[in-house]
Amino acid sequence: MPAPTEFIKYVDAHKDAFIARLGEAVAIPSVSGDPSHRQDVINMAGFIKRLLEPLGVKVELKDIGMEKQTDGSELPLPPVVFGVLGDNPNKKTILLYAHYDVQPALVTDGWNTDPFTLSPDNEGRLFGRGSTDDKGPLIAWINIIEAHVKLGLELPVNLRFCFEGMEESGSEGLDDLIIREKNGFFESCDCVCICDNYWMNDRTPCLTYGVRGMSYYRLVVSGPARDLHSGLFGNTVHEPMTDLILLMSKLVTPNGEILIPGLDKLVAPLTDTERKRYETLDFALTDIEDQVGAKIVLSDDKARVLMGRMRNPSLSLHGIEGAFYGPGAKTVIPAKVQGKFSIRLVPNMTPENVDPLVVKYLHDEFAKLKSKNTLKVENIHGGKPWMADPDHWNYRAAIKATEKVYKKKPDLTREGGSIPVTLTFADVLGLNVLLLPMGRGDDGAHSTNEKLDTYNYIEGTKLLGTYLHEIAVTN
Amino acid sequence: MPAPTEFIKYVDAHKDAFIARLGEAVAIPSVSGDPSHRQDVINMAGFIKRLLEPLGVKVELKDIGMEKQTDGSELPLPPVVFGVLGDNPNKKTILLYAHYDVQPALVTDGWNTDPFTLSPDNEGRLFGRGSTDDKGPLIAWINIIEAHVKLGLELPVNLRFCFEGMEESGSEGLDDLIIREKNGFFESCDCVCICDNYWMNDRTPCLTYGVRGMSYYRLVVSGPARDLHSGLFGNTVHEPMTDLILLMSKLVTPNGEILIPGLDKLVAPLTDTERKRYETLDFALTDIEDQVGAKIVLSDDKARVLMGRMRNPSLSLHGIEGAFYGPGAKTVIPAKVQGKFSIRLVPNMTPENVDPLVVKYLHDEFAKLKSKNTLKVENIHGGKPWMADPDHWNYRAAIKATEKVYKKKPDLTREGGSIPVTLTFADVLGLNVLLLPMGRGDDGAHSTNEKLDTYNYIEGTKLLGTYLHEIAVTN
Repeated sequence: MPAPTEFIKYVDAHKDAFIARLGEAVAIPSVSGDPSHRQDVINMAGFIKRLLEPLGVKVELKDIGMEKQTDGSELPLPPVVFGVLGDNPNKKTILLYAHYDVQPALVTDGWNTDPFTLSPDNEGRLFGRGSTDDKGPLIAWINIIEAHVKLGLELPVNLRFCFEGMEESGSEGLDDLIIREKNGFFESCDCVCICDNYWMNDRTPCLTYGVRGMSYYRLVVSGPARDLHSGLFGNTVHEPMTDLILLMSKLVTPNGEILIPGLDKLVAPLTDTERKRYETLDFALTDIEDQVGAKIVLSDDKARVLMGRMRNPSLSLHGIEGAFYGPGAKTVIPAKVQGKFSIRLVPNMTPENVDPLVVKYLHDEFAKLKSKNTLKVENIHGGKPWMADPDHWNYRAAIKATEKVYKKKPDLTREGGSIPVTLTFADVLGLNVLLLPMGRGDDGAHSTNEKLDTYNYIEGTKLLGTYLHEIAVTN
Repeated sequence: MPAPTEFIKYVDAHKDAFIARLGEAVAIPSVSGDPSHRQDVINMAGFIKRLLEPLGVKVELKDIGMEKQTDGSELPLPPVVFGVLGDNPNKKTILLYAHYDVQPALVTDGWNTDPFTLSPDNEGRLFGRGSTDDKGPLIAWINIIEAHVKLGLELPVNLRFCFEGMEESGSEGLDDLIIREKNGFFESCDCVCICDNYWMNDRTPCLTYGVRGMSYYRLVVSGPARDLHSGLFGNTVHEPMTDLILLMSKLVTPNGEILIPGLDKLVAPLTDTERKRYETLDFALTDIEDQVGAKIVLSDDKARVLMGRMRNPSLSLHGIEGAFYGPGAKTVIPAKVQGKFSIRLVPNMTPENVDPLVVKYLHDEFAKLKSKNTLKVENIHGGKPWMADPDHWNYRAAIKATEKVYKKKPDLTREGGSIPVTLTFADVLGLNVLLLPMGRGDDGAHSTNEKLDTYNYIEGTKLLGTYLHEIAVTN
């Protein structure tokens, strides 16, 4: 059962209104990682509630408690938006997940436009923080419900909405809620659809059946009681930055090889069949070069690069908190510096089996420095990797919907970014989870000048709507 | 000729007014390294002019041109404040130098009080950015002139004031001005007194006859055209942070040893006599531990540590521009990162003989990484080291003044911090230069919670005034 033609027409006819609605969402700077924006995140939940309720969705803002700050104070966690639409026992019930929080963004990071003003260019690209990650997909679900309500069309499935506001900060509080509501809100769900990832390139839709997990670490080196003048104390005391930089240099090689002993043994072995799958994906190294805007891929071997992204771990050094970061020249010896790095996890790695190896290795290396400073290593947040069965009816419905909207078979891929809740839905609820992306590989999620193409927003809205119709008749 | 008793009494009687005047100076956030504060720096010059002119000082704000920004735009440099007081050919003419700009300071850096509000505590410590570096000394000279004018006392010397506003940013424009005005404003000067350094501890005054120079470097690694998501691109492309951190780790060991080949050969050899001088200074390793608030000195050998500070080079890693620096967890692969580090120079090192070694070494090490990213190494600013003859009458007058005010012989020391203008005054004008400190070793110049003790401010004002009287009769 394809989606009714009226639905497709409605989406095309309401393009401008849908873009305007996304603009309203982007204008709310719901940065979950910055305590000063916490109220904006909470306001975003209210914004969604006000859109869903007039469409007949029963909405509840679930309080999930408080977040402990590093200074000991507490901040309210943004609520999880629960929505119920339909309760017909003869229909499948689909759980739709998206998140309404975003990564930090400052114009001074290098944005060409205000990150919190959705700014179209003349190629139809919609620039703004959260445009593609993940407000575009979230608003698309609302657009789809609106289209059905306004057209008087019956949805062939029951829907449950679960929209969270802490995805960019470790989904704090969500796992507990899913466990608590397993036999409550989530009881009737038959499968899950998450729209929070990307095509690999700018031409071929994909379905994603695996994502990497993550362990994010803070590496704290403390020395003097306060920042020091490098003229007065250089070559006099142990400098925390010297120790930290040396430790951070021992984590990963310029070629991407992780140097922490034992991690490689945790990675599931590669079979020939699996390697061939990477060789045949519609993806070229020039796609990555185009996406990153530079010829800096780690290898000329396409399978090596794709496996680096999808089925092997990675370690990235993100930055240093507490050191000088401004323009110009400040002659400071920082007193306490925190190196931030993360490891992307793949089967069979978990934060539980990775953390001890990381902590031990760093303490061993620190001991070799014979520094009088002190070291602390902490896992700030993390999640296990996830893989699903791509032969499930959930996937087959999505394949059919993709073929109808895009006239193309989607690639079946594993992805690099972690969406920890994927795993919780799979493990706790025991359901098949589908990742059905809307945006393109060059959207720049988490980066400066994040965008969503109008084409992907509008066709993606059709795709998600069509998927709901296909899934009703796929078994 | 000791300073007249009335002068000493006047200083004691006007303690509160002098503190209030320093408070007004601190309240102007004259941060020369931050373009957004440039107008505040310029305002600070006007503030000084308005204080000096009613005291009979002929003031001129010397325009020294524009500063080129990294984005290609230009900012006006803050003027150099020239002042003339007295032209009696039978008196010596003393050139007094101080600077009215300050280091950056944000409450969020870890200040306990607003950095730009002078905040006394109940131990008489005056907290505020610039309190000791260098607004306290600068305002002290104004207090001294005021005391003489109000008391109707004749100054036994002619004075020339040279107060600059770019000391914390490489003293841009000042060298050229000194060269231009060598036979103009500076022609009649007989010696120079600079009050812009610190006692080694909190009990023994010192005179400083040598300071280290500096070369400050920016190490730029560029890769992708924009920041990337570490989930999507980790283990896929060459990451600039990985390369930068590895390069920065190859500059200096945790024990302070510089790893750049050839630098050690530039350092003037150590004689036994010189080593003995460090062993006898009134200075203990516990003094450094007290100053930095932690037991992190590099060695148990006092002479080793003092030489590390005074007569050997040092290399400090200050931070990284362009990477993630905030609290929390951001999963970014930064596109372009700039490592900041500086080397303190000692005789016979100069930026000219050090720069090529640094640049070559870093490019050689970068080549070993086989990264597809690009590297640029730049010297942002620097200055040669300086040493003076401590037997000159300028020093002998300062020794007598110190003994009169503090009842103690000052230590003769070399210092770690660079004051590039010292060298210019010595080289271009051919004059003996004295560094006569006001503040203590634990004042925290350039750091959070910078302070000046009321005791040092008031006794220091007496010291500087007494020095002017002693120098008139020392030959």
